[in-house]
Amino acid sequence: MTVTDPRHIVAAKRDGHALAAEEIETFVDGYTRGEIGDGPAAAFLMACLLRGMDGAETLALTRALVASGDTVRLEGFDRPTVDKHSTGGVADGVTLVFAPLAASLGMAVAKLSGRGLGHTGGTLDKLESIPGLRTDLTPDEMKRQVRSIGCAVAAQSSRLVPADGKLYALRDATATVPSIPLIAASVMSKKLAVDTDLILLDVKAGAGAFMKTVGDAEALAEACLELARGWGREARVAVSDMEQPLGDAVGNALDVAEAIDVLGGSHRGRLRDLAVAFAARGLGVTSGRDAETARTEAERAIDDGSALDRFRAMIEAQGGDPHVVDDPGGVLPSAPVVLPIESERTGTIHGMATHEIGLASGALGAGRVRKGDPVDPAVGIVVRCKIGDVLERGGPVGEVHARDHDAARVAVRSVLDALVIGEDPVTPPPLVHVWLE
Amino acid sequence: MTVTDPRHIVAAKRDGHALAAEEIETFVDGYTRGEIGDGPAAAFLMACLLRGMDGAETLALTRALVASGDTVRLEGFDRPTVDKHSTGGVADGVTLVFAPLAASLGMAVAKLSGRGLGHTGGTLDKLESIPGLRTDLTPDEMKRQVRSIGCAVAAQSSRLVPADGKLYALRDATATVPSIPLIAASVMSKKLAVDTDLILLDVKAGAGAFMKTVGDAEALAEACLELARGWGREARVAVSDMEQPLGDAVGNALDVAEAIDVLGGSHRGRLRDLAVAFAARGLGVTSGRDAETARTEAERAIDDGSALDRFRAMIEAQGGDPHVVDDPGGVLPSAPVVLPIESERTGTIHGMATHEIGLASGALGAGRVRKGDPVDPAVGIVVRCKIGDVLERGGPVGEVHARDHDAARVAVRSVLDALVIGEDPVTPPPLVHVWLE
Repeated sequence: MTVTDPRHIVAAKRDGHALAAEEIETFVDGYTRGEIGDGPAAAFLMACLLRGMDGAETLALTRALVASGDTVRLEGFDRPTVDKHSTGGVADGVTLVFAPLAASLGMAVAKLSGRGLGHTGGTLDKLESIPGLRTDLTPDEMKRQVRSIGCAVAAQSSRLVPADGKLYALRDATATVPSIPLIAASVMSKKLAVDTDLILLDVKAGAGAFMKTVGDAEALAEACLELARGWGREARVAVSDMEQPLGDAVGNALDVAEAIDVLGGSHRGRLRDLAVAFAARGLGVTSGRDAETARTEAERAIDDGSALDRFRAMIEAQGGDPHVVDDPGGVLPSAPVVLPIESERTGTIHGMATHEIGLASGALGAGRVRKGDPVDPAVGIVVRCKIGDVLERGGPVGEVHARDHDAARVAVRSVLDALVIGEDPVTPPPLVHVWLE
Repeated sequence: MTVTDPRHIVAAKRDGHALAAEEIETFVDGYTRGEIGDGPAAAFLMACLLRGMDGAETLALTRALVASGDTVRLEGFDRPTVDKHSTGGVADGVTLVFAPLAASLGMAVAKLSGRGLGHTGGTLDKLESIPGLRTDLTPDEMKRQVRSIGCAVAAQSSRLVPADGKLYALRDATATVPSIPLIAASVMSKKLAVDTDLILLDVKAGAGAFMKTVGDAEALAEACLELARGWGREARVAVSDMEQPLGDAVGNALDVAEAIDVLGGSHRGRLRDLAVAFAARGLGVTSGRDAETARTEAERAIDDGSALDRFRAMIEAQGGDPHVVDDPGGVLPSAPVVLPIESERTGTIHGMATHEIGLASGALGAGRVRKGDPVDPAVGIVVRCKIGDVLERGGPVGEVHARDHDAARVAVRSVLDALVIGEDPVTPPPLVHVWLE
């Protein structure tokens, strides 16, 4: 018999009482060690979802998650360490641009990523489309690389917050994912387990994000910020738009190619603007520069080629072919079939079924349904227009990169169906709804 | 991939939607067959508990439980078949009295009991304290016995409502027991699986019952009645008092001895009154007699010895020693230590911590903590006073029957601590709060 019967903890939350920190820690610890089964844990999660958790409970849950595994100490750097994380969207390749850009501005970016499920691969999968590139860096390799070139992107150890992985799988199986305190604890536990000087968080809002409304996204952003505060950590959180794909590319190698275009300065638009906004925010907080100066320096780091140089150095340090930066098409894997997407109507893009575009890319093979599945690095979708753009019937929308013609045709159809085309002009949604600090 | 992802059903209930009957049936069926795990099922139960279930959902759940196993058809009886069930309390030996009493009044009582957990054994355990008595009757044995003598009490088959057993174990482990729709479906599924002409249900209310308030007990009674109606079955439901032990005996053999005293007419009080009330209600419904006549006939069946004769015949038919009826003390097992309980104060009994008296008997060995544990038939507690009775310091309260002196002394202490003694006279709680039909 354990000291506290786990059922008493479930019952207390069921009845709407706030739990003590020790109760939450005992429960999470018991579940992680297998002493508490899926049944009580799922009942607990549903009670938390329906009854809510206050700030102190959410902080205790986060502490319990972090305590389940190793933490990463980033000592001995002569630059401020910055982490940047997005809650996930479509064509959200900000990290690929942000990491070398921030490094070129004097920050140290030691980015640890998980291998999630999604319509396209995660940052690790995208980077691994570069021939030779490794993401399985040891902690020492990673620290050495960050010390020398300012950035590294590596797979997080399975010993980092293992309770979160176990609890997230249970939430996924039990319809207990959509709870702001549970999401905030899950997101922030992985950030707080690594002791960076600054956490930059991008909470996505809209049709292509988990949070469909700006209000829900703001509530999640606020909960995450409160956890950082409770932990005594510096953080800035943006609520940014996901009513349309952020960049153009929805795939893996295609995203790398786009990131190279952005870092090289030839590709402007929302992906560049958001990466610059995060880099400038990081620079402002860590160096004390005012917003305008920080932004100018970030733009300049792209325009003068220093950000792209940093990307080349990072790829080389991680074993990848650095020529990808100069000749993406020659180095990255390419799909055998490339089918153009042409508009069926003349009109203005009023909206995009963003999630469906992501799913269409997943159906081509760009994402994974099950943990451990391979992703196809070459396939994906490129959509070169945004809300508010005017299309001509028969004019270019983008293209599909696929393994065969049938798959390509299905994806073209999906993208065309995802476009909401109207007659009146519309104002595009803002890129960033709000910054919280 | 199943047709309906079980997570969609959990999510719909989580979001407060009423579920379609097929959704509930699919879910219960999937859980019973092991296709849906404890996690999703526990999340479902917690969502049902916190969001509630309407009458149609509760009926669908009950149907799904019944459909998980065999049903029992009671055909070819020349008497009306009556089932009687109590939601459980302390010293609640009504079935032992009711079954032979109702049989002596012309009803057929084919009582199937489960082997629950509790501070004392269930009806089966109590009866099995009679040497030789079997409760593992085959369906045919049971029907033959009921045809010849009007009553039988047997263990229910593991194929009767198996989903309820599995779901109840999960509810017990996940703090999802206290939900009126879930309790009602669990209770009634076992009654509705047997096609009797009349269901008599006793919902207990008070400190010794699961439902602590009359209001909660009435809500459960109403939910049970609504299920019977939805099934097209005749039912009457009493909400009766459990602020104090119903009878005097809290054990197993001790309860049989008390039942014999009640059936023999020598022991009057609340246990007799409630058994008579149920038998009279059954007689009234099945024969059309008015309440007063039915009650008079039920009292007479005790006073003229016919109810006791029926009990003797039932014991003999089930292989037990029928001499127990004439000489309980000589036939039933007895405990080596019998310690009198004497009042420490002079005053009026204002209340009893009824559940604690039950636990004290369980601590002596009269109940089981785990499924399959044996119960000690001989031990237990007898409390010979009720709320409103006046005690003298040093005067008799009852006695403890135990395996040894230490255990007996602990139980005596528990009973004395359970008595709330005051100075003013008090009105005892009513025996039956309300009858619903």
